[in-house]
Amino acid sequence: MREMEPFKLLVSQEKAEEIVLENCTPIEDTESVKIEASAGRVLAVDVRADRSVPPFDRSAMDGYAVIAKDTFGADTKEVLLRLDGVIHAGEVSDVRVSGGRCIQIATGSPLPEGADSVVMVEYTEKRGDEILITRPVYPGANVSNKGEDIVEGDVVLEKGTFLTPAKTGTLAALGLTEIEVYSKPRVAVIPTGKEIVSPGEQLAPGQIYDINSYTLLTVLEKHGVSVEQFPVAADEIETLKEALTQGLEYDMVVLSGGSSVGEKDLLAGILTELGEVLFHGVQIKPGKPTLFGIVNNTPVFGMPGYPTSCLSNAYIFLVPAVRKMARLPSVYERTVTAKIGKRIVSSSGRRQFLTVRLEGDVAHPVYKHSGAITSMAQADGYVILPVNLDVIEEGESIEVILLD
Amino acid sequence: MREMEPFKLLVSQEKAEEIVLENCTPIEDTESVKIEASAGRVLAVDVRADRSVPPFDRSAMDGYAVIAKDTFGADTKEVLLRLDGVIHAGEVSDVRVSGGRCIQIATGSPLPEGADSVVMVEYTEKRGDEILITRPVYPGANVSNKGEDIVEGDVVLEKGTFLTPAKTGTLAALGLTEIEVYSKPRVAVIPTGKEIVSPGEQLAPGQIYDINSYTLLTVLEKHGVSVEQFPVAADEIETLKEALTQGLEYDMVVLSGGSSVGEKDLLAGILTELGEVLFHGVQIKPGKPTLFGIVNNTPVFGMPGYPTSCLSNAYIFLVPAVRKMARLPSVYERTVTAKIGKRIVSSSGRRQFLTVRLEGDVAHPVYKHSGAITSMAQADGYVILPVNLDVIEEGESIEVILLD
Repeated sequence: MREMEPFKLLVSQEKAEEIVLENCTPIEDTESVKIEASAGRVLAVDVRADRSVPPFDRSAMDGYAVIAKDTFGADTKEVLLRLDGVIHAGEVSDVRVSGGRCIQIATGSPLPEGADSVVMVEYTEKRGDEILITRPVYPGANVSNKGEDIVEGDVVLEKGTFLTPAKTGTLAALGLTEIEVYSKPRVAVIPTGKEIVSPGEQLAPGQIYDINSYTLLTVLEKHGVSVEQFPVAADEIETLKEALTQGLEYDMVVLSGGSSVGEKDLLAGILTELGEVLFHGVQIKPGKPTLFGIVNNTPVFGMPGYPTSCLSNAYIFLVPAVRKMARLPSVYERTVTAKIGKRIVSSSGRRQFLTVRLEGDVAHPVYKHSGAITSMAQADGYVILPVNLDVIEEGESIEVILLD
Repeated sequence: MREMEPFKLLVSQEKAEEIVLENCTPIEDTESVKIEASAGRVLAVDVRADRSVPPFDRSAMDGYAVIAKDTFGADTKEVLLRLDGVIHAGEVSDVRVSGGRCIQIATGSPLPEGADSVVMVEYTEKRGDEILITRPVYPGANVSNKGEDIVEGDVVLEKGTFLTPAKTGTLAALGLTEIEVYSKPRVAVIPTGKEIVSPGEQLAPGQIYDINSYTLLTVLEKHGVSVEQFPVAADEIETLKEALTQGLEYDMVVLSGGSSVGEKDLLAGILTELGEVLFHGVQIKPGKPTLFGIVNNTPVFGMPGYPTSCLSNAYIFLVPAVRKMARLPSVYERTVTAKIGKRIVSSSGRRQFLTVRLEGDVAHPVYKHSGAITSMAQADGYVILPVNLDVIEEGESIEVILLD
């Protein structure tokens, strides 16, 4: 058996984040998706309008298409216009509005020739076949002009735009059914550890279920990744090397990690042989035993084996890394302000991630130790305690980053 | 043609929200999903542990399993223990630790019989076949006791829990492969309007593309809904009635709405005939022409036809409604604080929703009018301007609700 040694290459969280981001590059591959499925994706092309919006001068209100000067003075004298017809939504009329006349018009319908404005229905009264106008309008009133919104040929959405529902609607407005977006980064998640067994199988004495590849899978999918979940690889040189080699066909490899120092050393050895270890241990608690390296430009993470550590490090390091690869916005966390439910004394000398359960506006610490399932089962979010923290008194305000 | 009338039953936003929530009831149907697909869903059962976690007393560290009293005084005198074997991860040893002896042990491995504590590898030195202990430990040190985390039979996750990645990991920890969750609410989205054409088809003069059913689809899917997108229904009594009747087979119907007063009156008429209109117009801008009713306990929304109005009302009314039905947490919005990019003067007398584009920490208003596509194409979020607002000066701090 190899000698067991404490961690080497321990770096600060900031340095670790910097190294990770430097070594993760945005995806260049693109694919076509239906616009119904485009929300949450990132545009790989500039989207230009192939026609103007509106495509014609149209009424912005339900009312009557008129010649504005016919209505001047309608607030002080009686103005009656003869009703010459009706334009329903989706209809085009070839009736021309001439002096002293009007046409009833629905919102969105093309303004008939001759008319230059629309009087809202609220400011009219029907009197037989005539319409009483009770407020004057100026030329152009209640009319949306052709190209007022978008002029044909304009770039409406730029390459690199994150597609929200609003932006998906914009694609529909242009009549598109499919759109070119960046492909999702493909990440291989490899659970490792001789003691690790997939859920559904029988546990032998000394074995525990694989937790980390499930939390990693669900966190990564939420952040724009296509995940391939590998079978459990025992932490022996040949098995690990083979799994890692298969994983290198993906855009990133995440080993969801046994928890021991020995195993991390094993992985570090393999990485040093095939590529380069960039850090091995981070000054945060929990989550110190995190390893990062590259092999042929493919980033490789060795995550801490303890579930809470693995999860918090996934939020800290993996999520920003895959979001950069997926070209997703870098700001995405949801935070709430809460009162801490009990006095916290920090003693670690490392930056600390404290999982909390929210009850109304009170955040109750649920962190027992990084191996505890209940720390995870009860966590609604986490609080970052800085390195130089001494104490937080019960009831003090803190910022909780939600785990959702 | 029916007489066109201004809106009736205009209610405040608060009242409208109250009416909507009162008439939307949480889904009772449940279904079984794989745990890999369970994140974002809501537990329909209490999840109990069918075994204790840890299932055995185990080492919490890499180190040496010892009898604690053998190490007492190790900080002041030389304590050497004979190495009797090695327990790797996932292994169980039948070697018993007796006085003056120790066994090397990996994190997570079952504590061998006889031992009551573990000395961390950092506080040891190998001296041939003996181990020098440099710090004493107390009985129980660095050992996780059986059931310390979860006791067999405990409810680990309660019915109604929203499954985050952490909670999905908890299900894996218990060895589950599938889990019973509440079904997604099924919502029928029906685009209406004679002038509305599906993207991909040819536009005749006077026609425009369906935008709203795409924004509604993507917003609703993001909030736990299974959406059925109907073909466009013309705004004529028989066509609308038929589409609505089909829609009533779902848990909710959303008519994505032509924009005219006439059409809204048509829908109100049909709803009054089949069920009940609960409000018809809301005191907000944009989004006034919003209609809500129920038919046989099924909520029916008539959304404003203008895309920006439809979208903002989807966030205001639809999202809380479907989240209640899906049993999802009611707090979900992501907000950022920004400086307003230009002076805003409010003149509406209604509560106003102002779409903004974010550039660093500056929020630039992009709202032109509720028919504008660009208001939507450029919007990163929106700001709520209260009814009694007079003016916001350029550079003042505002809260932006992100549209993502």
